[in-house]
Amino acid sequence: MQLLQQTIHNIQSADHKMMGQARERIDALCKPPSSLGKLETLAVQLSGITGELYPAIDNKAIIVCAADHGVCDEGVTPNPQNVTVFQTLNFPRGGTGVCAIAKITDAKIVTVDVGVKEDVPHDAGVIIKKIKYGTDNMAKGPAMSREEAIQSIEVGIEVATEEIKKGINVLGTGEMGIGNTTPSAAILSVLHECHPNEVTGFGAGVGPGGIAHKVEVIYNAIALNKPNRHDAIDILAKVGGLEIGAMAGVILAAAAHRKPVVIDGFISTIAALIAYELEPNVKDYIIPSHASEEPGAKIAAEMLGIEPMLQMNMRLGEGSGAALAFPILDAACSMMKNMTTLEEAMLLLKK
Amino acid sequence: MQLLQQTIHNIQSADHKMMGQARERIDALCKPPSSLGKLETLAVQLSGITGELYPAIDNKAIIVCAADHGVCDEGVTPNPQNVTVFQTLNFPRGGTGVCAIAKITDAKIVTVDVGVKEDVPHDAGVIIKKIKYGTDNMAKGPAMSREEAIQSIEVGIEVATEEIKKGINVLGTGEMGIGNTTPSAAILSVLHECHPNEVTGFGAGVGPGGIAHKVEVIYNAIALNKPNRHDAIDILAKVGGLEIGAMAGVILAAAAHRKPVVIDGFISTIAALIAYELEPNVKDYIIPSHASEEPGAKIAAEMLGIEPMLQMNMRLGEGSGAALAFPILDAACSMMKNMTTLEEAMLLLKK
Repeated sequence: MQLLQQTIHNIQSADHKMMGQARERIDALCKPPSSLGKLETLAVQLSGITGELYPAIDNKAIIVCAADHGVCDEGVTPNPQNVTVFQTLNFPRGGTGVCAIAKITDAKIVTVDVGVKEDVPHDAGVIIKKIKYGTDNMAKGPAMSREEAIQSIEVGIEVATEEIKKGINVLGTGEMGIGNTTPSAAILSVLHECHPNEVTGFGAGVGPGGIAHKVEVIYNAIALNKPNRHDAIDILAKVGGLEIGAMAGVILAAAAHRKPVVIDGFISTIAALIAYELEPNVKDYIIPSHASEEPGAKIAAEMLGIEPMLQMNMRLGEGSGAALAFPILDAACSMMKNMTTLEEAMLLLKK
Repeated sequence: MQLLQQTIHNIQSADHKMMGQARERIDALCKPPSSLGKLETLAVQLSGITGELYPAIDNKAIIVCAADHGVCDEGVTPNPQNVTVFQTLNFPRGGTGVCAIAKITDAKIVTVDVGVKEDVPHDAGVIIKKIKYGTDNMAKGPAMSREEAIQSIEVGIEVATEEIKKGINVLGTGEMGIGNTTPSAAILSVLHECHPNEVTGFGAGVGPGGIAHKVEVIYNAIALNKPNRHDAIDILAKVGGLEIGAMAGVILAAAAHRKPVVIDGFISTIAALIAYELEPNVKDYIIPSHASEEPGAKIAAEMLGIEPMLQMNMRLGEGSGAALAFPILDAACSMMKNMTTLEEAMLLLKK
């Protein structure tokens, strides 16, 4: 708890003075005002985050948090739970979707076992921070204890801080956890104070009972566990997931260290909402990536006030959308560094 | 005319057998079916274009076609025409928006003077293929002759072919031409058979008469010149632009040489429509990039049956959106090459 409290304490809002300077330079560049749209607001944000007019975003990592979900017992997904451990072992070998996409910017993939149901070998290239062998089934009781929920966030803080210490200057969030659109929709239903049918989608495929069954499981889990809307840790513990907590921790750590964090799709955005509930200033450090196909993703993004940049109809997770957005950050930095102002261009042409 | 006819003659549809093979491999990868969305369809398209299961898209160029517009005399834009020559000279110096964005994938910028109003020095790093000193004012008569329109397309074919011969394996289209949203909207109005007010937007800023005046100028130019809806060259000649013709040529050349061509925003999409009217098979080679803010861009994209991948609220032109989409092509190629199938992953894990 101390690490979480200390991290939250260290989060300040972005550097608004530097944001003003960045906006001033961008407005002087040789282009019609605002014609580079979101690339401009992104560049302003990156300057605000880092406190630098020409930020360096050249050392990237996606932190993939892996865990299992007891609620799979309710038949909310057709995929067998051992896909979680299978893919967790596949990340360090470079064979997954996010690994292939991360290659385009040489981003590192850091895989963390926060709560995979099976044992992960110590030599598999996975950071083992297992809190428990998957959450408990939220249809029967809380998914985890309050202490475990805090621990899961602290795992994310620890791993992200370690990477930042090693020189990583931009993070992305990713996850692996069969069944994790169910707790994500449950958290969103509580935070958005809406019926789960508004925020529940097909995920990676829906179980034999169809989406109506998935909605019912979520509805009943909330009714049974009664999470407190105004206590994010209570929500995470009762109807959340270990990897969702860890991703919230990654986001909090990034903000505490003034590093940008690119969030992936639905599950990452839910983790961002948890982080936001714990400390609203994290919003300044969060960068959206793609628009997930899940219906809840749009609602969650709106709650955070962010707008995805990529429309790819993707729904893989793993951090794949975050990895695909990394080059857009490169472009924003290059715009700041390499594009000339009208005045500079005129001077150059006179030479 | 011979070069144009020969180029059109060389355009074949994409390799559907290879597309089937690519789809088969993608469906076997370790992910839920179709969960990488547009990245998957892009990879299939790239295989169909190149005839290779693992295409190499590693040598990129944006061809920026520059020209002026006589219709500027009608006050359709607040920007002075000499911005065209100013920016044309700024491209080879690396100071423009597209140059900064192209750096993220080391894409080359090739600048072509197809019809800038002022003389461009021969040592400025610009390929000089000037057909005339800007188009004539379409409010008073045709923007150019039929021969000049054909020449403009052939300039694009020549420049693109030269780059492909040098080893470029993916092209992007870009343009510089103050006032060029006016001829673009005019062409679209004719091709879409709609009133210009449906397809006319603010461009980089609208002149003192507002958007209503811009619409009126376009309406009257079409009424005066009577372009034939079923003759793309007639439309290009009467209400088009030299750089629009050149970009159509770039697209035709890419298709003839079986290379993918990424189109930028509104003006590029109009050039793509001209190319499509000349040879419908070009569609197989066209890759969309970002959704421009211009209202006509959406209509033009729908006519081509393409869906932008980036939602950046950009409206700079120059090829900036195409350059920003290049990494997505890299990601599609990396998915094919580096992601393992479920079977391959299982074999690896057994080792």
